[in-house]
Amino acid sequence: MIDQRVLPHELRIDRWADAHDAVMGIADMTVRGAPLIGVAAAYGLALAARVDATDDALRRAAEVLAATRPTAVNLVWALRRCVDSALGVSIAERPPLLRGLAEQIADEDVEQCRRIGLAGLALIEERHRRTGQPVQVMTHCNAGRLACIEYGTATAPVYLAQQAGIPVHVWVSETRPRNQGAALTAWELADRGVDHTLVVDNAAGHLLMHGSVDLVIVGADRVAANGDTANKIGTSLKAYAASVAGVGFHVALPWSTFDPSCPTGAAIPIEERDPSEVLRFHGAAVAPAATPARNWGFDVTPSAYVTSFLTPHGIVDPGEMLTVFERHHPRV
Amino acid sequence: MIDQRVLPHELRIDRWADAHDAVMGIADMTVRGAPLIGVAAAYGLALAARVDATDDALRRAAEVLAATRPTAVNLVWALRRCVDSALGVSIAERPPLLRGLAEQIADEDVEQCRRIGLAGLALIEERHRRTGQPVQVMTHCNAGRLACIEYGTATAPVYLAQQAGIPVHVWVSETRPRNQGAALTAWELADRGVDHTLVVDNAAGHLLMHGSVDLVIVGADRVAANGDTANKIGTSLKAYAASVAGVGFHVALPWSTFDPSCPTGAAIPIEERDPSEVLRFHGAAVAPAATPARNWGFDVTPSAYVTSFLTPHGIVDPGEMLTVFERHHPRV
Repeated sequence: MIDQRVLPHELRIDRWADAHDAVMGIADMTVRGAPLIGVAAAYGLALAARVDATDDALRRAAEVLAATRPTAVNLVWALRRCVDSALGVSIAERPPLLRGLAEQIADEDVEQCRRIGLAGLALIEERHRRTGQPVQVMTHCNAGRLACIEYGTATAPVYLAQQAGIPVHVWVSETRPRNQGAALTAWELADRGVDHTLVVDNAAGHLLMHGSVDLVIVGADRVAANGDTANKIGTSLKAYAASVAGVGFHVALPWSTFDPSCPTGAAIPIEERDPSEVLRFHGAAVAPAATPARNWGFDVTPSAYVTSFLTPHGIVDPGEMLTVFERHHPRV
Repeated sequence: MIDQRVLPHELRIDRWADAHDAVMGIADMTVRGAPLIGVAAAYGLALAARVDATDDALRRAAEVLAATRPTAVNLVWALRRCVDSALGVSIAERPPLLRGLAEQIADEDVEQCRRIGLAGLALIEERHRRTGQPVQVMTHCNAGRLACIEYGTATAPVYLAQQAGIPVHVWVSETRPRNQGAALTAWELADRGVDHTLVVDNAAGHLLMHGSVDLVIVGADRVAANGDTANKIGTSLKAYAASVAGVGFHVALPWSTFDPSCPTGAAIPIEERDPSEVLRFHGAAVAPAATPARNWGFDVTPSAYVTSFLTPHGIVDPGEMLTVFERHHPRV
């Protein structure tokens, strides 16, 4: 596991020996990103099964793993899938089955991201054919391979374009207050040799209005049935500016991020985080002691400002999301 | 002079003894903000005249003072006014005349800001009458009394509302990359006991769409004849989000900031600053060594997204700015 807490200055690989390592590594954000957390939890359960694979022991291990991060849907989804499968076989068969299942979940994540990437690659190819110039992509936060296993969601089209030999350049927003753009997205693009430039979040309007961006691609934390999109705080500001500038604004997501039970963005709860993330930077106070702060982690971009969704089943119009989802996820 | 470089953690008052102190203090940004720089330069010239008030000496002192900050229009304007007046009287009369002129320019600045404040106060009063609630103002960067002598431009309506007993709360954006919101606006509001909350720039969309902002008031660095407004990078993102949310977006400015010779925002040069302001924070790198950055200091908000201008002659529609300016500044 890459220790994401020490990026971008150090590439430290943690080796997890037992389930306790997995619990600690997810809880302390050594690993972050919803898809990656699901995979990490599955491996954690496989490690637990090597010690004790009885029903009670597995259920207890899954509970502890699930409690590490309360909001990540993928975590609960992956653990339930693993426990359900394990309980169907003998205790002796469980350790290899769980190990195989963790590998399968990781492989599925890679394939989902690759298909999301193909959807976005079509947009990049089309743009490059038309202009002959390097394609300028703007993103926000980190919805990259660090948050997944490979490709990422928002970054998948960029990596596939690079593989296809299409010149591409990414505008990376630093993403205050936790700076995931500067620390994670910049790191993973630099690591793969993808041309990119760091800017402050405030620069998006200037870049979009000066023709410096061909398309905006962001990830999502939850997408409502009508296409309203919750993502890292500041995402909606890029969507509004893209709309004014006439630039396409695209949301890349696996289907696990789509929530058909949530009718609109108004029903999505917005997590409020510790104000110290705003008031301090690397431990140093940035404001007077008398100044309070508020720190919402996400905002909702109204469906009307999303040009398209990039999904494992291709490019989908916001108004068509529920229909396409139900086609591929029939109720049983 | 308040040393703005050590705010918000320390209130250090510098006493300037001679013109050299003024030159250094303006150049090293002990003082910043276009109106304040004009006043500081006028005092610097008055200090120079106490040593040598001959024509050559005054002209030389004015040249050195003017060279401290190349883009601040008020600096050149104030120095020209002082030199022209001084050359019209005897050498012996010059030191007291220049001292008096510096005081006059400072007093004029206070009065301009007070009148800008009255224009904005009308909007705040109207809102408070209608809702009976504290009026929620969002601002960007520091267009406050630290940038002027008193009141500020964007903050003047807030201070006048406070004096009038109208409850008001200010959402202060930290204003990356130089954090003037967190360091300066938060400090001056805290210092006067004005209720305020610090947020990251990314939070503007969330706040505007949730009814948490009654009006946005920002300053300006240059306003073109058609009302296009150059201001601190990120200003336009607030304007676009305010438009989507149906919240008024107001630009506060003295007439010295209006440039009738500039037809539209496309003619306003946008300063690009050192990338290290983006790549480092308090000396610590925030991105990998291989990551480059760009750092534009300003962006242009199109006139169509400005609800009104708050001027020393009241509230002015964007389309009326040139007419109102010419009425009060007849060509000679």
